[in-house]
Amino acid sequence: MTQTAAIIGGGVIGGGWAARFLLNGWNVRIFDPDPQAARKINDVLTNARRSLPGLLDVALPKEGQISFHDEITQAVEGAVWIQESVPERIDIKRRTLAEIQDTCNPAAVIGSSTSGFKPSELQQDAKRGSQIMVCHPFNPVYLLPLVEVVTTEENDAQITESAKDLLTGIGMHPLHLKKEIDAHVADRFLEAVWREALWLVKDGIATTEEIDNAIRYGFGLRWAQMGLFETYRVAGGEAGMKHFMAQFGPALKWPWTKLMDVPELTDELIDLIAGQSDAQSGHFSIRELERIRDSNLVAMMRALKSQDAGAGALLAAQEQSLRANSELGQVAADIVDPSLPILTLRRCVPLDWTDYNGHMNEAKYLQAFGDATDRFMALVGCDAAYIATGGSYFTAETHIRHIDEVHAGVLIEVRTRVLGGGGKKMHIWHEMYDGDRLLATGEHFLLHVNLKTRRPCDASTAIDAALRRFVEAQAHLPLPTGAGRSIGAPR
Amino acid sequence: MTQTAAIIGGGVIGGGWAARFLLNGWNVRIFDPDPQAARKINDVLTNARRSLPGLLDVALPKEGQISFHDEITQAVEGAVWIQESVPERIDIKRRTLAEIQDTCNPAAVIGSSTSGFKPSELQQDAKRGSQIMVCHPFNPVYLLPLVEVVTTEENDAQITESAKDLLTGIGMHPLHLKKEIDAHVADRFLEAVWREALWLVKDGIATTEEIDNAIRYGFGLRWAQMGLFETYRVAGGEAGMKHFMAQFGPALKWPWTKLMDVPELTDELIDLIAGQSDAQSGHFSIRELERIRDSNLVAMMRALKSQDAGAGALLAAQEQSLRANSELGQVAADIVDPSLPILTLRRCVPLDWTDYNGHMNEAKYLQAFGDATDRFMALVGCDAAYIATGGSYFTAETHIRHIDEVHAGVLIEVRTRVLGGGGKKMHIWHEMYDGDRLLATGEHFLLHVNLKTRRPCDASTAIDAALRRFVEAQAHLPLPTGAGRSIGAPR
Repeated sequence: MTQTAAIIGGGVIGGGWAARFLLNGWNVRIFDPDPQAARKINDVLTNARRSLPGLLDVALPKEGQISFHDEITQAVEGAVWIQESVPERIDIKRRTLAEIQDTCNPAAVIGSSTSGFKPSELQQDAKRGSQIMVCHPFNPVYLLPLVEVVTTEENDAQITESAKDLLTGIGMHPLHLKKEIDAHVADRFLEAVWREALWLVKDGIATTEEIDNAIRYGFGLRWAQMGLFETYRVAGGEAGMKHFMAQFGPALKWPWTKLMDVPELTDELIDLIAGQSDAQSGHFSIRELERIRDSNLVAMMRALKSQDAGAGALLAAQEQSLRANSELGQVAADIVDPSLPILTLRRCVPLDWTDYNGHMNEAKYLQAFGDATDRFMALVGCDAAYIATGGSYFTAETHIRHIDEVHAGVLIEVRTRVLGGGGKKMHIWHEMYDGDRLLATGEHFLLHVNLKTRRPCDASTAIDAALRRFVEAQAHLPLPTGAGRSIGAPR
Repeated sequence: MTQTAAIIGGGVIGGGWAARFLLNGWNVRIFDPDPQAARKINDVLTNARRSLPGLLDVALPKEGQISFHDEITQAVEGAVWIQESVPERIDIKRRTLAEIQDTCNPAAVIGSSTSGFKPSELQQDAKRGSQIMVCHPFNPVYLLPLVEVVTTEENDAQITESAKDLLTGIGMHPLHLKKEIDAHVADRFLEAVWREALWLVKDGIATTEEIDNAIRYGFGLRWAQMGLFETYRVAGGEAGMKHFMAQFGPALKWPWTKLMDVPELTDELIDLIAGQSDAQSGHFSIRELERIRDSNLVAMMRALKSQDAGAGALLAAQEQSLRANSELGQVAADIVDPSLPILTLRRCVPLDWTDYNGHMNEAKYLQAFGDATDRFMALVGCDAAYIATGGSYFTAETHIRHIDEVHAGVLIEVRTRVLGGGGKKMHIWHEMYDGDRLLATGEHFLLHVNLKTRRPCDASTAIDAALRRFVEAQAHLPLPTGAGRSIGAPR
């Protein structure tokens, strides 16, 4: 049965909660007195619909119904989850919670998005503190999984367990703190870093942009996959967490931050942290952790490269420079011998191209052939500048023969022949090699299109001429083995 | 001409520098008195060779030569870059730098990997302070691009510029600080977070693992792509950076961290930060920044899912649960009507499947067909448990016809027919739809293999029977349009 969530307060955070519930199949009822509330929530929903459904390799449940209500009492009707995201003032929060509790289901979860208040402060003077808890999410709520769940002894254990199950069901990770504390956990780190950053900018050490780069090109990439302690466990190497802490212990007394009120590093505290770290990651050796870390970084940095963002933009720039200074940087007029197959790809198989069969995944063969096609297109003049004028080639048909396996770390090359082309057509043949070992062939038929109409049309005369030059120069070569083959045809 | 780097001190950091230079085509000369140095550096090199070359979509230059030397004077011979990574004690650093300067090229860069010392401390009493600078990298040095470059007025501007160029050439990002300060920039943040984390563990608020999860499921993912200030700029929404700072300004006086020695938030400081943030990101609207942020997060989180790590492991668990509770969770015996095409994929096209032509990239069609094949394999019993026993199917041949375009956000389905199979063979036919709109067909011929010998062999009798059941039930269907076609054959 479709469940209902009530969203009380519809700003960036409330809107994010609404999107998270709605796209996971819940009905969502909104209360927000702001006359702009519907527009603002729709803006968040537009972004969420764009990014969340494709995040998984399987479809989410059918989207629920969203409705807007003028009174809190209407909005909470039938809701098993009520999320309060009103402004960060304790008097407003308490007044809102009282209104919610006037009519809501006593077994419903009332989660508060508060960044700073403790649950005991929210429960004070409430009709039923047992159903009120901190559920502090992170922006964008529809994508980031973390929710800090903070409760007190007054909370009903069954409602708390149900809250954690419901959060897991909408793809979130409930982190249930052992005790309440001002600003919970994550925001305490953010606050510490924020204060230090204010000093650095004020003292003229670095600009905001330089500080952002110091984070996203360095420890930000480590933290996104392992966090703080596991990262340091790896840094400590084979000597372990205790060694790491002993080595960096003295730094606690050094002026490495302006934030100097630090705990005393007693043996007890060292043992506590080293023991917890063992329980967390002791089943992996440091070498294993290093490989996990590196695989994650490769996958993330390559992902960022696909977006030309952060550390990925640095990779893209390096690639461009490497390519320009190699045989791959040529244009058609420079090709010494157009009558031979042309080198269109030379790359190492990355870690994240491996699948459960322990070899390069079939889709990555087409990725590599597609990259080779892009390179050949650029060679005949269909490069980024030409594409920006509104013409490009689309692949209409592909035939791949997998001849042999290949593994991460192997240098592969693709050499390309032109079997036909001119006008709107291009018929090419790729062979992928590891040295002399043939790994696969790719036969591709492409059509030149007008990117406005999305219909086929002739390529520019310059491209046509460059393409025909290759077709003619290579006409003397015998038809490659496997060209024109269909699946099921006798070999 | 091949350039030479001298690595003085070969621990985790020195070894990482060695790998970074070597794999970017430099010759590397190592000095480290530790008798285990060669083994340790080879361990780092093994990891680096595994992850770095495939990080780019183009091959790196040919690897340089590595050599080990008993004396610093030998190691620095011919080096244009000398990197000092000896233990973090100023007396050892100064003695090492003096020995390096006895014989090194006066125009060479001498970079120090120091985490904490200022360059003026390293230059004190040196023969030529002009060539000594802090070049502080981040572990793993062969993957993370950040290097903090810190100089003083004593430094030679030409050597400093050349240092920055050389770092860029090996794929790094030199962040040249405006002034020296203890611990530079990034480690000051790490130290602040570390101190706060010690308090949280000591006070029993959260364990090390919970703290790591609070980072990697939340702000860690934001920081990996945008850092601190740009993230807050987005969080501030349309009201801008000043509004964000005013809103969170009061928190500086609140007990949100135990680290309380904070700068006064004057109008001057607010203007300074807001102005720098404008210069950094003012050319994007908040909506644009939000979309950039979300695209990055999708790409990174999907990348982490491919590794079953961090926030990606949460996605994988959610996927599994969604799949199990849908039509896609069936096994062969549950299929109501095996005589009709079978639903094998139902997913939304993710953001990061779009290419420069503005539509789903050709390789992602095969990705989706490959996922559909995996699902069909599991349906007939070739699931993860069976694969763990040593049998699986490898694709031998693929033929894709692209019928229509599709864009990110669209829900696509694949329906699968079995054209033949039994023994070691499987011949399947996928059709990809957006509603009733046919997007593409995929014809695939697979062979069952023994995963030890990597040679074809018959599938288990259970799989054989399940497969033949589908073949027989679907034998009455007409051959699909396009099946058996080859490229270039008349339509």
